[in-house]
Amino acid sequence: MTKGTSRYPEPIERLIEQFMRYPGVGRKTAERFVLYTIDRFKEDDYLAFMDALHRTKTDIRPCTVCGHLTDDDRCGVCKDDARDESKILLVEESKDVLVVERTGTYDGLYHVLGGVLSPANGVGPEDLRIKSLLERLKDERHKELILATNLSDEGETTARYIQRLLQDTDILLTRIAYGMPAGGNISYADEITLNKALEGRKKI
Amino acid sequence: MTKGTSRYPEPIERLIEQFMRYPGVGRKTAERFVLYTIDRFKEDDYLAFMDALHRTKTDIRPCTVCGHLTDDDRCGVCKDDARDESKILLVEESKDVLVVERTGTYDGLYHVLGGVLSPANGVGPEDLRIKSLLERLKDERHKELILATNLSDEGETTARYIQRLLQDTDILLTRIAYGMPAGGNISYADEITLNKALEGRKKI
Repeated sequence: MTKGTSRYPEPIERLIEQFMRYPGVGRKTAERFVLYTIDRFKEDDYLAFMDALHRTKTDIRPCTVCGHLTDDDRCGVCKDDARDESKILLVEESKDVLVVERTGTYDGLYHVLGGVLSPANGVGPEDLRIKSLLERLKDERHKELILATNLSDEGETTARYIQRLLQDTDILLTRIAYGMPAGGNISYADEITLNKALEGRKKI
Repeated sequence: MTKGTSRYPEPIERLIEQFMRYPGVGRKTAERFVLYTIDRFKEDDYLAFMDALHRTKTDIRPCTVCGHLTDDDRCGVCKDDARDESKILLVEESKDVLVVERTGTYDGLYHVLGGVLSPANGVGPEDLRIKSLLERLKDERHKELILATNLSDEGETTARYIQRLLQDTDILLTRIAYGMPAGGNISYADEITLNKALEGRKKI
């Protein structure tokens, strides 16, 4: 029996490897994706996929002002004159911007850190958009920085770090409220969330 | 507020759509894949992915003899002179060939139907590699056809259909002995079970 009959031809194996790079995608899932591709994709579908990869590679970059992903020099929010420049919402990732935008209620600007401080993963202040944040806040049109990092150890550490950097400035520092989510059930709440919900309780 | 800030720039949205074509991949998963791509892929990684798609598109086709996926005219099994030509194992999909090959115990040939008869899904005999199977079996070097369609209603129907087509020929028809539960899928069978099933095949 010749070797190699228990593997797919090399182009298929290579495409399987590409899909296996993604988080949560193992060999079986990647195989399923590739066989689906071979089964269902027509010439145009392949071209559309390759073109989408190519355009993402060449056209997508961080906004030069806030760091949000954009296909232009500045992102849609930063280009929008109608936004309230007095507020900047500080988030970890570009996808956080979208989540907030979808609520349709926030009309200020953003700053995307690009992660959180994490000594364990070798992420220090110089790996995040902190320097550009400090530069940006020198512009006196910006009055308030709303910290919206996640409620994780690293998110909290990052928020405190930035708080310390700005303590001697005139910037109004605020933190979004953390507590029970809408529809949340106390029985299933984690301790951190429940602690925050208790701490943030209000007189009724 | 301008429209469009609650969506990603168009190249990203297009790549998200591409990933969403795959079975089991929803918007959130596709977003995660695309943001992972943007975060982690370097120039070379993009090129490798695009090249793997391109090569799969241009180089992969069914083996002209058995229908197994190959990047050549004939697949690795059909090109191998050391295989026992007297036996042909009939499977539904190309991935079934790999699963059997990985057991390392079967030394015969294959025929890949490319699916199962399924009137509900509009799959008739002409949509499967049945005609080419009959042609192939006219070669008297092939003595035995081992039916290894899945133990599903459609797999059974397909096996019976082929059995009927061959009942007046000299071909020895056998069926692998399934130690698997009804509804079991060959692609997910473990090697031991599959070995047992091959060893225990019976004349029908």
